[in-house]
Amino acid sequence: MANHEAPRVIETTFPVRYAETDAMQVVHHATYLVYFEEGRSHYMRELGKDYAELEAAGFRLPVTEVSVRYAGSLQYGQRVRVLTWVKENKSRQLTFAYQVLRHDDEECVLVSGFTRHVWTDDLGKVTRAPEAWHTLFGVKT
Amino acid sequence: MANHEAPRVIETTFPVRYAETDAMQVVHHATYLVYFEEGRSHYMRELGKDYAELEAAGFRLPVTEVSVRYAGSLQYGQRVRVLTWVKENKSRQLTFAYQVLRHDDEECVLVSGFTRHVWTDDLGKVTRAPEAWHTLFGVKT
Amino acid sequence: MANHEAPRVIETTFPVRYAETDAMQVVHHATYLVYFEEGRSHYMRELGKDYAELEAAGFRLPVTEVSVRYAGSLQYGQRVRVLTWVKENKSRQLTFAYQVLRHDDEECVLVSGFTRHVWTDDLGKVTRAPEAWHTLFGVKT
Amino acid sequence: MANHEAPRVIETTFPVRYAETDAMQVVHHATYLVYFEEGRSHYMRELGKDYAELEAAGFRLPVTEVSVRYAGSLQYGQRVRVLTWVKENKSRQLTFAYQVLRHDDEECVLVSGFTRHVWTDDLGKVTRAPEAWHTLFGVKT
Repeated sequence: MANHEAPRVIETTFPVRYAETDAMQVVHHATYLVYFEEGRSHYMRELGKDYAELEAAGFRLPVTEVSVRYAGSLQYGQRVRVLTWVKENKSRQLTFAYQVLRHDDEECVLVSGFTRHVWTDDLGKVTRAPEAWHTLFGVKT
Repeated sequence: MANHEAPRVIETTFPVRYAETDAMQVVHHATYLVYFEEGRSHYMRELGKDYAELEAAGFRLPVTEVSVRYAGSLQYGQRVRVLTWVKENKSRQLTFAYQVLRHDDEECVLVSGFTRHVWTDDLGKVTRAPEAWHTLFGVKT
Repeated sequence: MANHEAPRVIETTFPVRYAETDAMQVVHHATYLVYFEEGRSHYMRELGKDYAELEAAGFRLPVTEVSVRYAGSLQYGQRVRVLTWVKENKSRQLTFAYQVLRHDDEECVLVSGFTRHVWTDDLGKVTRAPEAWHTLFGVKT
Repeated sequence: MANHEAPRVIETTFPVRYAETDAMQVVHHATYLVYFEEGRSHYMRELGKDYAELEAAGFRLPVTEVSVRYAGSLQYGQRVRVLTWVKENKSRQLTFAYQVLRHDDEECVLVSGFTRHVWTDDLGKVTRAPEAWHTLFGVKT
């Protein structure tokens, strides 16, 4: 049975870096995958865990799929706000969803998307999520 | 009526750069969006045009959506092969599709995806594709 | 006459991003130029100014020279600490110096360097520093 | 005794990528370290070797120092030309020098610099260059 609780949403903010902009004078579209990655890194830190710890324990969470929609853009001088939550938490697969906003604009979602990951061991073989982590990511689907 | 001809597929190849790898010792997943971008840049150059020329003429093709699936990975020391084609060519919207392979492995598509773009003027206002470019991109849908 | 006061040192910290690592499993050496850039961006913000504001006023500070020495490395899971100060503040030229440390290790400077900049207008013509900014950067040499 | 032969200069060319530009509408200054890296990767490939091969043999060549001077800039739509040569070839240390030009402008060196490397084993311990590679890099100083 599905768990209908709202997922825990974790926020992280940081400034746009000049190197992240392109000749259109906005943040380059590939950079948002790095923002998403920083969003889920922060998500794990907020849960008291760390992806580095996961790697040390012999697990990996490689990305198998990404999807991003761009409705607006960010510029140098602005502050990024990334909202991250677990969208789907299966035994062998984990999906994070993201919204990127400008820090001083609560309303307008500029970029949104998801990244899907598969649990593997350190040789790349698909495996079940370690129990503690699976529980940590909470949402059941 | 739809044009049922097979789309023109353009190939570009280049070596994996060390800076593109990450601590998993493979090309970082965000890098493939840069490979896609290089694929469509090369596509336009092969058609005798250039995106820089398009910008000089007051047009932009910002990315509005991307989707990527990762089935395998590339490592430093290997050569990237990107296949690019126009998937959808509407009056205000253009979609490119991509396959990324290892240069010496004809069979195995490692990463695939698409990028959707909207035609705008240099102030970001949505506009119709310039006729010459629209014709150039060929496929009608 | 030279101003012999110690320069103001501004600190900024942020986590290593996974995308910044390379196949040697440490932060890629080019990334430190981005850390330096973030260091001087933060330096300006701490002074109540912003490089974006400078650009809006028609000035640019392009990099004319960089020098970096690498004595150690950072890994994913660690936190970066960048110390930034003005090393030289001439009428047409500005030099920032940097030290990069691991956040939990006060002693060990991993990477150090400087970036030299020239003041230009928005067409790239070398110009004198705007007076308010020149004063702000303080150190005279 | 010093070897006074002119060093072997290897050229590599590739297009500027859009992602490499920044809001100043030129290639971001940190990108040139990636161009240098691609220059020395190509240098090794031209000598019939490969840095990946070196890594497989248990050696590393981490960067210990870089220096770059910027006299001009590159834009999207232009083609990069990197000239690479060995500047210094010591038993434990190797220095490459670089010049970056626009492909269609033979005269004007836009960016120049060097990267210094130390020979280490795969645990990071400084070691002597493997004999075959040391001979390959030729120049004695």
